[in-house]
Amino acid sequence: MKNAQPVFVAVIGAGGVGKSFLSQLRDLAIRRPSPQLKLCYIATSRKAIYSDDYFAIELDSAVQALAASSKTPRAVPDLLAYLTKAPGKAIIVDNTSSQDVAEAYPAALKAGISIVTPNKKAFSGSYKLWQDIFHAAADSGAKVYHESSVGAGLPVISTLKDLVETGDEVTKIEGVFSGTMSFLFNSFAPVGGGGGKWSDEVKKAKALGYTEPDPRDDLNGLDVARKLTILARLAGLPVESPTSFPVESLIPKELESCSSGDEFLEKLSAFDQKMEEKKASAGDKVVRFVGSIDVASKSVKVGLQTFDPSHPIAALKGSDNIISFYTKRYGSNPLIVQGAGAGGDVTAMGVTADLIKVVAQIA
Amino acid sequence: MKNAQPVFVAVIGAGGVGKSFLSQLRDLAIRRPSPQLKLCYIATSRKAIYSDDYFAIELDSAVQALAASSKTPRAVPDLLAYLTKAPGKAIIVDNTSSQDVAEAYPAALKAGISIVTPNKKAFSGSYKLWQDIFHAAADSGAKVYHESSVGAGLPVISTLKDLVETGDEVTKIEGVFSGTMSFLFNSFAPVGGGGGKWSDEVKKAKALGYTEPDPRDDLNGLDVARKLTILARLAGLPVESPTSFPVESLIPKELESCSSGDEFLEKLSAFDQKMEEKKASAGDKVVRFVGSIDVASKSVKVGLQTFDPSHPIAALKGSDNIISFYTKRYGSNPLIVQGAGAGGDVTAMGVTADLIKVVAQIA
Repeated sequence: MKNAQPVFVAVIGAGGVGKSFLSQLRDLAIRRPSPQLKLCYIATSRKAIYSDDYFAIELDSAVQALAASSKTPRAVPDLLAYLTKAPGKAIIVDNTSSQDVAEAYPAALKAGISIVTPNKKAFSGSYKLWQDIFHAAADSGAKVYHESSVGAGLPVISTLKDLVETGDEVTKIEGVFSGTMSFLFNSFAPVGGGGGKWSDEVKKAKALGYTEPDPRDDLNGLDVARKLTILARLAGLPVESPTSFPVESLIPKELESCSSGDEFLEKLSAFDQKMEEKKASAGDKVVRFVGSIDVASKSVKVGLQTFDPSHPIAALKGSDNIISFYTKRYGSNPLIVQGAGAGGDVTAMGVTADLIKVVAQIA
Repeated sequence: MKNAQPVFVAVIGAGGVGKSFLSQLRDLAIRRPSPQLKLCYIATSRKAIYSDDYFAIELDSAVQALAASSKTPRAVPDLLAYLTKAPGKAIIVDNTSSQDVAEAYPAALKAGISIVTPNKKAFSGSYKLWQDIFHAAADSGAKVYHESSVGAGLPVISTLKDLVETGDEVTKIEGVFSGTMSFLFNSFAPVGGGGGKWSDEVKKAKALGYTEPDPRDDLNGLDVARKLTILARLAGLPVESPTSFPVESLIPKELESCSSGDEFLEKLSAFDQKMEEKKASAGDKVVRFVGSIDVASKSVKVGLQTFDPSHPIAALKGSDNIISFYTKRYGSNPLIVQGAGAGGDVTAMGVTADLIKVVAQIA
């Protein structure tokens, strides 16, 4: 495009998603060189690379340069000041799950700095933070894109925004929003019967890397509750917080106080019988851990539900997510999006796609 | 947003999709008034409304004003000249299925006029036209968005573009791309057996408005072939035309020359036995009319295939579309998009959402 203005990009976080994102950014620069896009800052919690003259960081060697750097990251207000003085528009790509960074979004947006992130914290925290973010963006014209905050790279946020912005009436959103929960229930209660012991399935999921280091961080349902909070707010419900609606935890009360994830896993088998009973009580149906939003009754909930074997939620495979949007225009058959909802590459893909869209708008 | 430039919108076509689009545009203007967006031209094939000073047309009374207008539409080159002289950026929303309008896209884009359309013709015609369109857009910076050219408002084009632009490797695309074919086979060969006579199902589909006036325009497979052509090209295959790969027609040779759709429907029952045999030969599987693109082998095809009852394509309901994207990042479980793929409101929704995105980029 002609007359494109330079855009300065600051990346925070270089964990699994951050590294995948940097690699996608490098490949993008090779396929479609864009002198316009200048990566001027990368930071982890301990290290950073940047220069006072906003010199573009080489993407090929960014991860190595970061590891070798002796610079420490700028404090967030300092980073905002740095980007505000850049000779062009600026974008922060927040690949962390940090609450601190999330809370700086309103200040960044007010300063005209756009935000691209998979970080759920900002959008599923207090309703006031949500409002501050979107008011700041509306005032300054800076953009805030967060596709990967729900379902990783699956087109969930963008689809819901399109439905709402074009005036469709979303009546219900329902789905499996956690890759961990999807894997656990597809193995524990497969269609057609069978499946292993609950505690064994949790151990297997952990061994395969499908759970957080402490599996209780998945089993408490909070991750799903955060995603539901985001979708409910986009659908127009002023949900106060992810703890302001019913969330069923799969952590037995007795094990909440275990001092470690390992201790929890060790003691979990004592509760297998309870989960067996839940599976058995489903009868011909199968039990799944789902989230649902009923817009008319303003009801949001997260927990176990049973589904007919022919239901798309029952037919899910592996660790896939599925999200069904019921709307006035789509009628009785919902608009469904399905696929991997976790993993570094597909999460980074949502971030990279968002970055491309934001650049197209602000450059 | 601050300092937004005016954007002039010309709408061609006021049929089912066109009327739904104008109604969505009116609702959008009420919900989110945008003095920036100026509808300056609306035309059908016979009538038009516009003024030489680009005065914004009242959305509330546009359809009535059009019906009452004594002005005839501008010829396409004349319309381009009119929009080029507008005091701001311009967008043509082409809600027709006209080949003539489609062939003017390169000239429009060269002149800096963006295009938003559900019209498949431009993207599924000759490969040269495809190249001319995207080269012209790349040169001028004008945008061309056509989400509703495949799967109506379902996020199909945008998802495929995101996958490709972020560097994923699309290996296969497979699905049911026609609401008519979906309805016919879900009724004719439902999972679990049963289903009516083929000719009866076709008559029923026509009575319910699910087919073109002449059902042969659905049964020849060309509509699906056009959609596959678009997706294959976006995935990187230089498909020459929708007739350059195998497309199975469900019109018996003997009935190709029927002088009318009614005569065709009358004589179709003589071929019910052939379709019964196809259904029976599927055994435990069910037969469906699908399109598939295998990127590695550069093979595109459209026609009947059989699927296990547990396959998502077999489990489809009503007239829904389903599109599965197999990619390197998504691995063995594809990214799936499913839902209504036809109808005025959901098609217009894709157009309206595209318009919002284009305005955000060019204003």
